[in-house]
Amino acid sequence: MSAEHDGQTGPEPCVVGVDYGTLSGRAVVVRVRDGAELGTAEYAYPHAVLDRELPDGTPLPPDWALQVPADYVDVLRHAVPAALAQAGVRPEQVIGIGTDFTACTVLPVLADGTPLCELPEYTGRPHAYVKLWKHHAAQAHADRITATATERKEPWIERYGGKISSEWEFAKALQLLEEDPELYRRTERWIEAADWIVWQLCGTYLRNACTAGYKGQLQDGVYPTPEYLAALNPDFAGFVADKLEHPIGELGARAGGLSAEAAAWTGLPEGIAVCVGNVDAHVTAPAAAAVEPGQMVAIMGTSTCHVMSSDQQGVVPGMCGVVDGGILPGLWGYEAGQSGVGDIFAWFVKNCLPAGYAERAAAAGQSPHEYLTALAETQKVGEHGLVALDWHSGNRSVLVDHDLSGVLVGLTLSTRPEEIYRALLESTAFGTRTIIEAFETAGVPVRELIIAGGLMRNALLMQIYADVTRRPLSVIASKQGPALGSAMHAAVAAGAYPDIHAAAQAMGKVHRAVYEPDPDRAAAYDRLFAEYKLLHDYFGRGANEVMHRLRRLRTEASEASA
Amino acid sequence: MSAEHDGQTGPEPCVVGVDYGTLSGRAVVVRVRDGAELGTAEYAYPHAVLDRELPDGTPLPPDWALQVPADYVDVLRHAVPAALAQAGVRPEQVIGIGTDFTACTVLPVLADGTPLCELPEYTGRPHAYVKLWKHHAAQAHADRITATATERKEPWIERYGGKISSEWEFAKALQLLEEDPELYRRTERWIEAADWIVWQLCGTYLRNACTAGYKGQLQDGVYPTPEYLAALNPDFAGFVADKLEHPIGELGARAGGLSAEAAAWTGLPEGIAVCVGNVDAHVTAPAAAAVEPGQMVAIMGTSTCHVMSSDQQGVVPGMCGVVDGGILPGLWGYEAGQSGVGDIFAWFVKNCLPAGYAERAAAAGQSPHEYLTALAETQKVGEHGLVALDWHSGNRSVLVDHDLSGVLVGLTLSTRPEEIYRALLESTAFGTRTIIEAFETAGVPVRELIIAGGLMRNALLMQIYADVTRRPLSVIASKQGPALGSAMHAAVAAGAYPDIHAAAQAMGKVHRAVYEPDPDRAAAYDRLFAEYKLLHDYFGRGANEVMHRLRRLRTEASEASA
Repeated sequence: MSAEHDGQTGPEPCVVGVDYGTLSGRAVVVRVRDGAELGTAEYAYPHAVLDRELPDGTPLPPDWALQVPADYVDVLRHAVPAALAQAGVRPEQVIGIGTDFTACTVLPVLADGTPLCELPEYTGRPHAYVKLWKHHAAQAHADRITATATERKEPWIERYGGKISSEWEFAKALQLLEEDPELYRRTERWIEAADWIVWQLCGTYLRNACTAGYKGQLQDGVYPTPEYLAALNPDFAGFVADKLEHPIGELGARAGGLSAEAAAWTGLPEGIAVCVGNVDAHVTAPAAAAVEPGQMVAIMGTSTCHVMSSDQQGVVPGMCGVVDGGILPGLWGYEAGQSGVGDIFAWFVKNCLPAGYAERAAAAGQSPHEYLTALAETQKVGEHGLVALDWHSGNRSVLVDHDLSGVLVGLTLSTRPEEIYRALLESTAFGTRTIIEAFETAGVPVRELIIAGGLMRNALLMQIYADVTRRPLSVIASKQGPALGSAMHAAVAAGAYPDIHAAAQAMGKVHRAVYEPDPDRAAAYDRLFAEYKLLHDYFGRGANEVMHRLRRLRTEASEASA
Repeated sequence: MSAEHDGQTGPEPCVVGVDYGTLSGRAVVVRVRDGAELGTAEYAYPHAVLDRELPDGTPLPPDWALQVPADYVDVLRHAVPAALAQAGVRPEQVIGIGTDFTACTVLPVLADGTPLCELPEYTGRPHAYVKLWKHHAAQAHADRITATATERKEPWIERYGGKISSEWEFAKALQLLEEDPELYRRTERWIEAADWIVWQLCGTYLRNACTAGYKGQLQDGVYPTPEYLAALNPDFAGFVADKLEHPIGELGARAGGLSAEAAAWTGLPEGIAVCVGNVDAHVTAPAAAAVEPGQMVAIMGTSTCHVMSSDQQGVVPGMCGVVDGGILPGLWGYEAGQSGVGDIFAWFVKNCLPAGYAERAAAAGQSPHEYLTALAETQKVGEHGLVALDWHSGNRSVLVDHDLSGVLVGLTLSTRPEEIYRALLESTAFGTRTIIEAFETAGVPVRELIIAGGLMRNALLMQIYADVTRRPLSVIASKQGPALGSAMHAAVAAGAYPDIHAAAQAMGKVHRAVYEPDPDRAAAYDRLFAEYKLLHDYFGRGANEVMHRLRRLRTEASEASA
């Protein structure tokens, strides 16, 4: 199939979507007519994630995770032209570009958009850099934000399941203020990377409605009040007015035209539509054609994000947020998540895989994950005798506590690596089931579970999710869900479709009920899930605060040895 | 120093001690005068531990651990002559031989001592083999033994801390009766390997007082009654009278003279004294010169056994047993233990050590344990943020429950292997502290902690034990504690010393207070131990029976797939 000519009407209009992930950015060139993905290219961030030290060697404490904003611009320079070339699409066919980002990934900039970390005097200051979504060093600040809001009965707190995450804009900003007040004063805008990259593309700063609502606590057009902020810290009172508040851009709207500079980076025509920023998970829902109430999309990668639109407004304990039109216009957009999923499997392979396993995997031409999965596949449910808690990166939903940590119960001298691996896979499925049950208990029905993200390639993992949740799993029919979703929003911004519903109908892709639950395995999993739930509540709901105390001891010991 | 001549009185009398461990037997040649160890040799059992299948391929269920009795005779053939050769000692200098064994390690034999597994018709029958101490498949039988004894208020139950272990003679025999009644009927003697090997050496079956008391429930000269046994199973009523009861040999007594056949195996003179059997842990106490009340010897290897004599009779919850004269004549002999210690560290290295670590250890010329220990040594107490339960092989004291399993709490994406390794080392120290506290709470004071066994070579582990227990650690000054202890008992049996006290004074060896606790580390460990204790009681005392349920699920799944 040629992209350039359809044989009838000449060159086909195309759009470009760019998905900014945790370790790389990925561009995809998409045909507007039917969503066909014509070419794609990935570019790894040169600095990846800074979690041990800054580029100049300045060491970072535990739980920090930073990035370098120039890496994001490099993606535009490399991945977009490469995707165009692979697609065989001429630049003038492209009518718009859309982007999505991890969130909350946030940085301090000057009024002209210059990141503080690019000022020579601040290259050695950790707080001058981008704080990546998984920067978890602001838990103490988040705890105060939640406690103070609960005490003062702030109306917005229930929209976030009763807890504000350490990952979000206010917690990370409060940490900045209290740990590096000088840098806080120099910060003229506290901006989501999702919006910063759009600013680089079109020269306009518009704050996207999605992150403003989910990560910036904007509800019904109002931010937390100065009085509330002053109760957290008197110097924080002006945070919203001075550094955060900014005109809102609706999802799918045109932020501006591609600047000459960005046109030179990307090879795209100057002036084409640049779409308002968006978030990787949320933008994936229409890509999976999930535009009906109750269609939950789980985007499973290093972490998992669950997004769902609903006509029901509910208070779901520990959800990440509910935002009016936060995913689709006219519906309540819900977000929940699991902080660590693929990350946990990767941790296991990096830190716990014996040499013999690595060798046999290599000999079989398999990745360690493929090798372990093949071994795990032969096990009956429960045969490993293990149950794990999937909190190696904390718990985002429903407990909203990043100071929680991972647990393994049931180890014996005959426990083998593939058994632990399977227990970890299962623990993340139990985490998803916990989230689904929280929604349904709160009166927000989940009608379909659709999987997107890199982990959908693992058939064993998918089958486990189907068995554990007792639901047929649908799977997005694209390997580039977020980038496709961004491209669809670009099509809307360029006027090719009247709204994202129309774009989703033409361009969205899903295979229905690919994995069906097996009743016997589901019954066995009910028993394991009961154990998970007991441990979940014991360690997560205050019966034994051991994880918090261990973390405190760890911090004290690290400080003593620093 | 020449062993053959001391320059004054001609050839020096020597004794041979043979220590039967889990994987090998070790012979040592010892000078009677001062305990000098002149030569040693080890011989690995050709069949090691049968825990997956019998030699003919017959598969074994989980938790089984068997051995082949002929392997024990092979040790006499190989290790004794090799030790003599290394010592440069002439056979005629040797005046006695003593042995010690793992316990409860027990086998079914005919009246002439022939093991059932050596009858051609039974080579494919698992129950015909030696059940090694760590055969843990009789937990259900042990539970009934305990429950029925408690119900009937049997007087002996409190001498075993209120619980009978699945490792002991009655549990393993009841399993034999109920799972293979034909073999049970063919069993004419249910005999400790400790006594079987002495029978092979001198042609006489004497039941040693140590295992009869600790593992055979012989208290104040009386076994459990036929009425009690019938309450367990009517066919079990005659077990004691028909298969178990036998004349008792006191520790250090002469069982007989070395037979011509055994003289041919070992190269030792026919007719020399063969000492009554003994147990590896108990025999180590006099080897470490621990002959005073309150000197606890922890023999740390694959598992740890704690033995202590006391002038106080107490009921220590979950102790393995208290036996009058069970270690030293005239004192109450106490035994407690941890089912998995070195086994857990070995499991970790085998199943969880990444390739890069194995390579760097090899490049540094270190064993994986040495390499991990060196990395773990640099950590501050609590810096890893972890706490583990050391129950990978169940819990022998103070919970006496082999269906418990290991736990790791506090895992994060930055947790490294050396951190888990250190947490495992620490968990075993917490286990020992739990045992010491149980003794002291019961009014049986522990005045000194003396370490013996292979793990005493790990200086980090020793320092952790000193810090965790807040006690100076003494260390046995012999690498062959059990074999030395057996040789000392042989010297008594041969009449070279009037009793084991005198032998211990001349031949025992200990370095006092080699490791001193550090107050800061001890204070930090108090906090970690508090977490251990919470989890210990939560998982071990019925608040959450998850481990039992996981094991049941595992068994069901294994059976379904078999």
